[in-house]
Amino acid sequence: MKLSSVQLDQYHREGYLFFEGLFDRNEVSTLTDRVKAILALDRPEIVREKGSGVARTAFAPQYYDDAFARLARHPRLVEPAVQILGGRVYMHQFKINAKAAFDGEVWQWHQDFGTWVNDDLMPEAKALNVALFLDDVTEFNGALMFIPRSQRRGMLEAGHDLETTSYPLWTIDHATIRRLVDEGGLIAPKGPAGSMLLFHCNLVHASPANISPWDRNIVYLSLNRCDNAIRQFKRPEYIAHRDFTPIEPLPDDCLRSLAAGSAVR
Amino acid sequence: MKLSSVQLDQYHREGYLFFEGLFDRNEVSTLTDRVKAILALDRPEIVREKGSGVARTAFAPQYYDDAFARLARHPRLVEPAVQILGGRVYMHQFKINAKAAFDGEVWQWHQDFGTWVNDDLMPEAKALNVALFLDDVTEFNGALMFIPRSQRRGMLEAGHDLETTSYPLWTIDHATIRRLVDEGGLIAPKGPAGSMLLFHCNLVHASPANISPWDRNIVYLSLNRCDNAIRQFKRPEYIAHRDFTPIEPLPDDCLRSLAAGSAVR
Repeated sequence: MKLSSVQLDQYHREGYLFFEGLFDRNEVSTLTDRVKAILALDRPEIVREKGSGVARTAFAPQYYDDAFARLARHPRLVEPAVQILGGRVYMHQFKINAKAAFDGEVWQWHQDFGTWVNDDLMPEAKALNVALFLDDVTEFNGALMFIPRSQRRGMLEAGHDLETTSYPLWTIDHATIRRLVDEGGLIAPKGPAGSMLLFHCNLVHASPANISPWDRNIVYLSLNRCDNAIRQFKRPEYIAHRDFTPIEPLPDDCLRSLAAGSAVR
Repeated sequence: MKLSSVQLDQYHREGYLFFEGLFDRNEVSTLTDRVKAILALDRPEIVREKGSGVARTAFAPQYYDDAFARLARHPRLVEPAVQILGGRVYMHQFKINAKAAFDGEVWQWHQDFGTWVNDDLMPEAKALNVALFLDDVTEFNGALMFIPRSQRRGMLEAGHDLETTSYPLWTIDHATIRRLVDEGGLIAPKGPAGSMLLFHCNLVHASPANISPWDRNIVYLSLNRCDNAIRQFKRPEYIAHRDFTPIEPLPDDCLRSLAAGSAVR
């Protein structure tokens, strides 16, 4: 998995790259087979929606599930990040965001880097997110919205929203969003389960509630350059990891070989 | 404005008809020029969002604005309803639904007829809605979602939701929605300001919150056949009208002539 110079240019200009259907059906089902059981776990890593109690986020599934442990080292997810960031990376955060059918709630407009600086003292914006769709993402089930090129403004002023949902977030005011959208527009990448999205940690994004009858699970890897490790350990370890060891990618067939019943770690 | 037999068949089968860009830019701006002032009025007809206090619905603007008074008798909106319902119609309800940028909230899954039966004792489902987009409706700003063919099931069981938003609504349970969507799928008509949507009063629909920076104002005419008038007057007159006089459509240029500065009523 090697990005072309055209892809690298697009990433640096627009702030994201989208790969439709990068993982095949079998690879995806190896993961989705585990998701229901993970979201049903009663442990602090599973954050629930304020209203319904339905699972919203499962943090750090690589600690307690072998398929997600492999995914956290998958070369198709990790190698493009190394290439873009220009150095070895470690896992800052790894989670399943479950925007459940009917009950999945909104994420207000934000930059991820805002939280990483404010809460974790990450030095620079040398980090990015890799999103892997575990369900088809459509216009109906709460697709993420991005403001292209908004990452070029650097870190924007934000307020700490403790009200809207069950997860505290540094969010950006309406006037700033209007201005950024006037300049860059909005995009909402949609595609089948197995699609991958890479985006800059300063790319402004949000996602609406999911009122459709279709779940919308997405896995997020937040990868940070090893020489840019966080300096404050205020949040739980399962939210902001403290192991800064470079990720060693596994072979490209690491999910397929698990599905085939080979030995797990 | 005369529907073809193909259009009539589609309406009766799918439960809706969509006309992209039916009203031109000047006709639309004659209306949108008034909307901001209407939504700012401090009168009981203007219902506000629970959280933000931003206007959610302006009921009965035809009573206090001359452009909307003309729109309420516009032949492009009224004549197709007469043709579909097979008889003269009166205005049961007329409103602007303002799904405001950032603050416009969700409408849960429902059939309009449920409310009209339960609250107003409307005898039969011989009524329909006509929606006129006052803003461009896109994938980003809270497009309505419909379950095609769901009107063929007749009136479905519903519960009275007094919690979710500022407006009480008879809503349909998740299991029923899943079943209907399995059969009919989902559609979300999108198009420029001036587009018109007709839909059956038993067609199940919902709309998500609007977290985009773009407003999404839509005018709704709920037209009922004159021999099907409501029998209970529990709700305020500005919500469920009590004048069952057949609508006399105005000439097709009624909005254009107002824009040109001719005498108002």
